[in-house]
Amino acid sequence: MPKLDNRLIVNVAFTGAVSDKSRNPAVPYSVDEIVSDAAACASAGAAIGHFHVRTETGEATNDPKLYADLFRALRANPATSDMVLVASTSGRHGQTLQERAAVLDLPADARPDMASLTLSSLNFSTGPSVNHPDDIIALAQRMQENGVTPELEVFDLGMVSYLNHLISRNVLTQPLYVNAILGIPAGAQADALTIGALHAQLPQETVLSLGGVGRWQLPAHLFAVAQANGLRTGLEDNLRSPGGKSLTTNEELVKHAAELARLSARPLMTAREFRAEVLTA
Amino acid sequence: MPKLDNRLIVNVAFTGAVSDKSRNPAVPYSVDEIVSDAAACASAGAAIGHFHVRTETGEATNDPKLYADLFRALRANPATSDMVLVASTSGRHGQTLQERAAVLDLPADARPDMASLTLSSLNFSTGPSVNHPDDIIALAQRMQENGVTPELEVFDLGMVSYLNHLISRNVLTQPLYVNAILGIPAGAQADALTIGALHAQLPQETVLSLGGVGRWQLPAHLFAVAQANGLRTGLEDNLRSPGGKSLTTNEELVKHAAELARLSARPLMTAREFRAEVLTA
Repeated sequence: MPKLDNRLIVNVAFTGAVSDKSRNPAVPYSVDEIVSDAAACASAGAAIGHFHVRTETGEATNDPKLYADLFRALRANPATSDMVLVASTSGRHGQTLQERAAVLDLPADARPDMASLTLSSLNFSTGPSVNHPDDIIALAQRMQENGVTPELEVFDLGMVSYLNHLISRNVLTQPLYVNAILGIPAGAQADALTIGALHAQLPQETVLSLGGVGRWQLPAHLFAVAQANGLRTGLEDNLRSPGGKSLTTNEELVKHAAELARLSARPLMTAREFRAEVLTA
Repeated sequence: MPKLDNRLIVNVAFTGAVSDKSRNPAVPYSVDEIVSDAAACASAGAAIGHFHVRTETGEATNDPKLYADLFRALRANPATSDMVLVASTSGRHGQTLQERAAVLDLPADARPDMASLTLSSLNFSTGPSVNHPDDIIALAQRMQENGVTPELEVFDLGMVSYLNHLISRNVLTQPLYVNAILGIPAGAQADALTIGALHAQLPQETVLSLGGVGRWQLPAHLFAVAQANGLRTGLEDNLRSPGGKSLTTNEELVKHAAELARLSARPLMTAREFRAEVLTA
């Protein structure tokens, strides 16, 4: 565990590349929908937003113009001007390295603060997500060149092992912010032994955030308030309210996380604090 | 841990798809080389052989004719006629499902007893190994139809999770023979906590074998004699003698494993016992 105190960092994955309005109409697609959702979530306590963009018809894309529109709009809006902005560099739909990296080369006012970096190939239930080691290293280097901090995505123990390998090669340096996303069928699960093994392998200075997919989102959050620096929530990972009884919204999920933090005697870390104490520390 | 007693099952991965004569001339390529190596290893105590075939120039292939020649030759040779024969269905070089599955459809006298089934996609250091969930399920079903037992290859915790998922869907049934291969950079490592987490997630009835790549082969074997049913050794995973001082051979590696078993007061399980107590139990 790192040197931060007990403040909890809430990260919202608003949209994702797979979550679908036909299954939950609250999934935000357009820039306007995402900005208004982000404003509500920031007010409810979210410090970090993890963003994907969609075409007008809702398809996943890495279009840098859409990212630029989104990040400029979020920075211009007083409710979200502080929020730490993360761009997905997902290659889940077979995008080329160039397509994935384009968002990192945007002008400074449109460039994200952070960008996702998945640390290996893996199977989602729908199919493989391929991240060649060379692409992972190229993305990490491009982030470093452009002053974008990686949001390190970990789905299994081996990705922590690879994280340590990249640190030993100076491909990754501090700050180390890790989202461990638990509960995919071919990934690490949300149980104490697995999470203990993750903790044991992670570098001491890691800022660790836990998320979970579907019904594993809630247990991941319980483990997070028990022993992690933050949690990742949002409709990218799960479409239903904690407990599963009804559809939910990003705002409702953040409010739930904030309530859990309050009951756990953990203040929320603000976006400004995260910038000062993690990103530019 | 399963209901077997303390006998240790030695599995030799002779050739692999990557190990190269230019780095260790003892890597067997041709049918003759493999049969003679297998005879030496069987005499030294190996019960199971995990086989890849190579073209005349040493390239990896899944050619069913080469597999048929190899398995018929091994069965005809008194020194290896009992050995449990495993064919690789590796897709590491981008083979199609049909190419990977062809060995499963060989006539009974040429068909392997077991065939490898890797339970997700992953990154090796050289690049991704892609195993689409649909292909994994198709291979498992083809094995079931042809009476070929899967040799379940696990490189990380998530693959055990997916193994449990496939059991719950009746895609996999007993016997469950798992090779956990530890120490690839983006995989599970050979440490007690990780191996404990593997044990905790594996079904009770699993026959667990541990292997490791490169210098992790030796620690994996120490964990195996301490708490697993078997070990996987061989030049597919590691080219150097235990301790790393010189190049090694498959026979030397099996002799080392047998010596380790002796010092651990663990008799070796014979191929015949494995057939009777695991494969057809």
